[in-house]
Amino acid sequence: MINFTLMGAGRIGKMHAKIINTHPKCNLKYIYDVNLKSSEEVAKLYDAKVVSSSEEAIESEDVNAILIASATATHIEFITKASKAGKAIFCEKPIDLDIQKVNQCWDNIKNLNALIHIGFNRRFDNSHSKLMEACKNKEIGNLEMIIITSRDPEPPGLDYLKACGGFFRDTTIHDFDLSRFYLGNDPIVKVSAFGSQFTSKDVIDVGDQDTAMFILQSQKGVLIHINNSRRAVYGYDQRVEIFGSKGMMISNNQKNTSVEIYTDKFTEAKDPILPFFIERYKQAYQDQFDHFVTTIEAKKPTSVNFQDGRNALILANAAYEAMETGKVVNVKY
Amino acid sequence: MINFTLMGAGRIGKMHAKIINTHPKCNLKYIYDVNLKSSEEVAKLYDAKVVSSSEEAIESEDVNAILIASATATHIEFITKASKAGKAIFCEKPIDLDIQKVNQCWDNIKNLNALIHIGFNRRFDNSHSKLMEACKNKEIGNLEMIIITSRDPEPPGLDYLKACGGFFRDTTIHDFDLSRFYLGNDPIVKVSAFGSQFTSKDVIDVGDQDTAMFILQSQKGVLIHINNSRRAVYGYDQRVEIFGSKGMMISNNQKNTSVEIYTDKFTEAKDPILPFFIERYKQAYQDQFDHFVTTIEAKKPTSVNFQDGRNALILANAAYEAMETGKVVNVKY
Amino acid sequence: MINFTLMGAGRIGKMHAKIINTHPKCNLKYIYDVNLKSSEEVAKLYDAKVVSSSEEAIESEDVNAILIASATATHIEFITKASKAGKAIFCEKPIDLDIQKVNQCWDNIKNLNALIHIGFNRRFDNSHSKLMEACKNKEIGNLEMIIITSRDPEPPGLDYLKACGGFFRDTTIHDFDLSRFYLGNDPIVKVSAFGSQFTSKDVIDVGDQDTAMFILQSQKGVLIHINNSRRAVYGYDQRVEIFGSKGMMISNNQKNTSVEIYTDKFTEAKDPILPFFIERYKQAYQDQFDHFVTTIEAKKPTSVNFQDGRNALILANAAYEAMETGKVVNVKY
Amino acid sequence: MINFTLMGAGRIGKMHAKIINTHPKCNLKYIYDVNLKSSEEVAKLYDAKVVSSSEEAIESEDVNAILIASATATHIEFITKASKAGKAIFCEKPIDLDIQKVNQCWDNIKNLNALIHIGFNRRFDNSHSKLMEACKNKEIGNLEMIIITSRDPEPPGLDYLKACGGFFRDTTIHDFDLSRFYLGNDPIVKVSAFGSQFTSKDVIDVGDQDTAMFILQSQKGVLIHINNSRRAVYGYDQRVEIFGSKGMMISNNQKNTSVEIYTDKFTEAKDPILPFFIERYKQAYQDQFDHFVTTIEAKKPTSVNFQDGRNALILANAAYEAMETGKVVNVKY
Repeated sequence: MINFTLMGAGRIGKMHAKIINTHPKCNLKYIYDVNLKSSEEVAKLYDAKVVSSSEEAIESEDVNAILIASATATHIEFITKASKAGKAIFCEKPIDLDIQKVNQCWDNIKNLNALIHIGFNRRFDNSHSKLMEACKNKEIGNLEMIIITSRDPEPPGLDYLKACGGFFRDTTIHDFDLSRFYLGNDPIVKVSAFGSQFTSKDVIDVGDQDTAMFILQSQKGVLIHINNSRRAVYGYDQRVEIFGSKGMMISNNQKNTSVEIYTDKFTEAKDPILPFFIERYKQAYQDQFDHFVTTIEAKKPTSVNFQDGRNALILANAAYEAMETGKVVNVKY
Repeated sequence: MINFTLMGAGRIGKMHAKIINTHPKCNLKYIYDVNLKSSEEVAKLYDAKVVSSSEEAIESEDVNAILIASATATHIEFITKASKAGKAIFCEKPIDLDIQKVNQCWDNIKNLNALIHIGFNRRFDNSHSKLMEACKNKEIGNLEMIIITSRDPEPPGLDYLKACGGFFRDTTIHDFDLSRFYLGNDPIVKVSAFGSQFTSKDVIDVGDQDTAMFILQSQKGVLIHINNSRRAVYGYDQRVEIFGSKGMMISNNQKNTSVEIYTDKFTEAKDPILPFFIERYKQAYQDQFDHFVTTIEAKKPTSVNFQDGRNALILANAAYEAMETGKVVNVKY
Repeated sequence: MINFTLMGAGRIGKMHAKIINTHPKCNLKYIYDVNLKSSEEVAKLYDAKVVSSSEEAIESEDVNAILIASATATHIEFITKASKAGKAIFCEKPIDLDIQKVNQCWDNIKNLNALIHIGFNRRFDNSHSKLMEACKNKEIGNLEMIIITSRDPEPPGLDYLKACGGFFRDTTIHDFDLSRFYLGNDPIVKVSAFGSQFTSKDVIDVGDQDTAMFILQSQKGVLIHINNSRRAVYGYDQRVEIFGSKGMMISNNQKNTSVEIYTDKFTEAKDPILPFFIERYKQAYQDQFDHFVTTIEAKKPTSVNFQDGRNALILANAAYEAMETGKVVNVKY
Repeated sequence: MINFTLMGAGRIGKMHAKIINTHPKCNLKYIYDVNLKSSEEVAKLYDAKVVSSSEEAIESEDVNAILIASATATHIEFITKASKAGKAIFCEKPIDLDIQKVNQCWDNIKNLNALIHIGFNRRFDNSHSKLMEACKNKEIGNLEMIIITSRDPEPPGLDYLKACGGFFRDTTIHDFDLSRFYLGNDPIVKVSAFGSQFTSKDVIDVGDQDTAMFILQSQKGVLIHINNSRRAVYGYDQRVEIFGSKGMMISNNQKNTSVEIYTDKFTEAKDPILPFFIERYKQAYQDQFDHFVTTIEAKKPTSVNFQDGRNALILANAAYEAMETGKVVNVKY
């Protein structure tokens, strides 16, 4: 059995606790959260122990792996400690909002050879990853365009908006990573970005965007479009289209049932799409975790590593620069 | 130019008048209708001449072809006269509601070798006929099942119900013919039928059905299901499914636009399907007429002949017998 | 915790063992199978105990519920013993292949008030049951037609064909039950049936059908069509269509991914549908089991009881009679 | 009857000749083309007269309307002459490739009050225009994003590439116009553009792009994405998505039949989409022409006027500037 400590028992932490607990090879041993009530609630559910010191949580000898689902500002501290303690690390995105700190962290840990997985869950979605297989196998010929539509169901509250590091670093970062996933070893070299404010006064007050469009271009010339919104009334809109010299593949939205309705007003109406990431990416989160367990057992590198987390942040930063300067930004990694 | 007389200037006659007029090789010369006002209205539109005697309409020397779209009760008389006059004949279904009269008609004309096309328009629908091509080419392996859904948008009035010869002879006759179309030279040997009355008191008053289901079986064992209704609030529901040892093909409904709507209540909602036969089978009616013109020019037999009209009626009669006796009827042709 | 004995550790038994084990309120205590190797295999997986006597398996005091997934011929014996022992019973369909034995069983147990659930899993499918809600809420007006398509991916082997009790009692029985589910308290009064032999010599040798069509009619006149095949190369085809005075709803097939493929040959091509019942009805099997647990806890009757099992068998028998006599059979319950 | 002169008897000219000829209120009187063979061919088909002088073609007293489908370089000359001659003008896009010439033309004709319709056919497509109605009626709330996918089936030859004025002015110009159509009186103020070369050496040789992506932003902040390719192996890909505060609408691709294919490899496969603009926009071209006829009769302005043609060209020019400078261009009208 692989013993886990869970750092952070909020919404996403709870989801991970359940996944750990369900995995036949894993055991949820310790839970750490600054909010004791949260950690106790989760600990009770899965028969785990609450610890009140992050050192104890990370460094205990009977722990093999650390799952970091705490506030973003704590990620680097926990990654560093866990690397030094020789633990396997699963860290939710982003590594940090500040690229300087990310670089500093890397300098501190790069020689420790820690197994670090960054939680870009979408790469593990069956539908999205089927498109990746198609790219690899040239099923659509040479890749020429990628179009990613990624829209949240409803805007978060003011507190979240203030803490999230901005729309591009909070949300689009997933799409930047997904673009890199499909491109393989063809790096993104140019970024352009536009933003608008439509959903709430809060967004305007914090000076952020809630609706955005991007164009990226890879070294080989592949063109990538991303569009985002904080609000889609019909659900969590998650689509990917890859277009190539011999065809096109679309990873489309998913619904709760396969029912179609016909009335005198319309036909073939289907359910609203799955509401948000917990439901839409349930299979992806499970398979991502299973991939992490497999890499621990095989002592092999994970497919989504520290540099993937760093590079997605670099693209988000480049996007902000592009929007602010009105220029296409040449990405430096 | 091929000169036409149109017998009958009602709803379907008007549609044919327009098709004749638009065809580059055809000319609408004469129009005959017991209702003078109808024939004058159509004549004016297409610069044709109204004639008040059916003999003149059919036997005039400058006429090459007769399109019979008049009341069913007149079909046999006009077919017989036109056959004797050596004209090419396009007759709307059914030939007659009485199989004895149909047989008598055949005895009278069989030696005249008239070119007679019966208006089973659905055979000429691009989607339905693509399934026929697939059958021929064994694209789904050996044909094993056919499922035909055919529902009108709304029930007709009392007058129509009284005159139409019954739901099976009026409506299902198209589906019996379509079943024969897909089966090719494998004859239907068994028929079972059920009916219900749901849409109006009129249907009950005339002792007819408005909702019906059928199972037919061919000599080779192919199973055919047909379901009909006089009322589908979402439009004129016209679907065919063919199932075989190597796959399935579905000829699905069609809409006016390709628009999809997403709201907080539903997703992917499309237009109501096309309202009725004039709209749904526009292409089929045109291509059917063009086929008729081609057979005239080539002096070749039409692909839907008198016997096709007769056999569809035999199946409708067998269906009534099956429903009334509660037995599977062995079809005799 | 509710302690379970699993009777039968074959394919479907294994699936149930996993569901019991995963349920937070249940514990898999004992496993009984005439094949010791099978029971040991499952027992090891879930830390259960193998028992070699059916009496011990059923009557042990520390057992609360019996899940019967053994060969059909044993169902009545086990139901009777478990009823007498006061256990809650979950029995896979069918109760038995012989209606006389089913009736006798009922006479023996009816005064024992045992909680008996018959495993008609399809009622618990999210999509199929959404149609049931629509019927209840008159979302499509008055129900007028039901069309059920139910096709297995590939024919079973000769041994299965010999033991299964015939295609209608083995396979269509699910569709008869589903028809009853949608009809609510409107009983099916008439049955018509047709069969053909297309998939293998085995089917002909055992004198069974592998392709079949049915029409049923309810007391209120609702018409039901069912079509079945032992072989659909594109997967386990499971569709339900309900049609009423104000619209139509379709519970459509489901696929593994939401990917669409566009090539120079075709567009919008999707995955093959889910391969067979374990995959297609995963959610339904889980929710059915959860319903069973809820009824045990609430000491309330289950929604699919012994009479539901008996009535579906009566319909299957009526269907065989209809096919063999070539007559519509009036169903006697 | 409205008498027409057709200027230019090439591919698009031939299509217009047929539309004019079919329209009940119009007569194709004269045809002018520098290639006499082409004009004679078309003239013969529709019983029109070939004229060899553009003056005669445009200024003849018995002509009411001029349809300009000749080479782009001739458009301004013919528009100017026809305006001076007081004829109604239907001119295919673009007005010219050089904005200076377009401005000069406008100075010359603006006081003549000629009725000038520019051939942005896509505005008249039933599906695309249904989205426009939805925008007007706020059916999706406030408009926030527009995504236009527009891909040709295969790249043109070298001659065409040399003469077409560049990908953005030749192809994207339609999408710039369509964006303006949906935005109504909210002008596009910013443009960003990216291009790549994937389809042929010819494209590289002429220094043009064959694959391109654009982001535009309107004064109110609406974000518009356009993507184009000269090659889509599955057909002429024409999609529009509008997204707003209360929902989304998609105008999807269209196919020749409504057939779906199920095999052991895939399910629900449909026909390739319609091959190119003649087929895809058949209804749009007819309705556009009918709109033109209606404006002539009503002596009212057309809904797509000279300024619409000019503004689309300004956007294409801005897009080239954006791509070449790597900057977001602020559009000046």
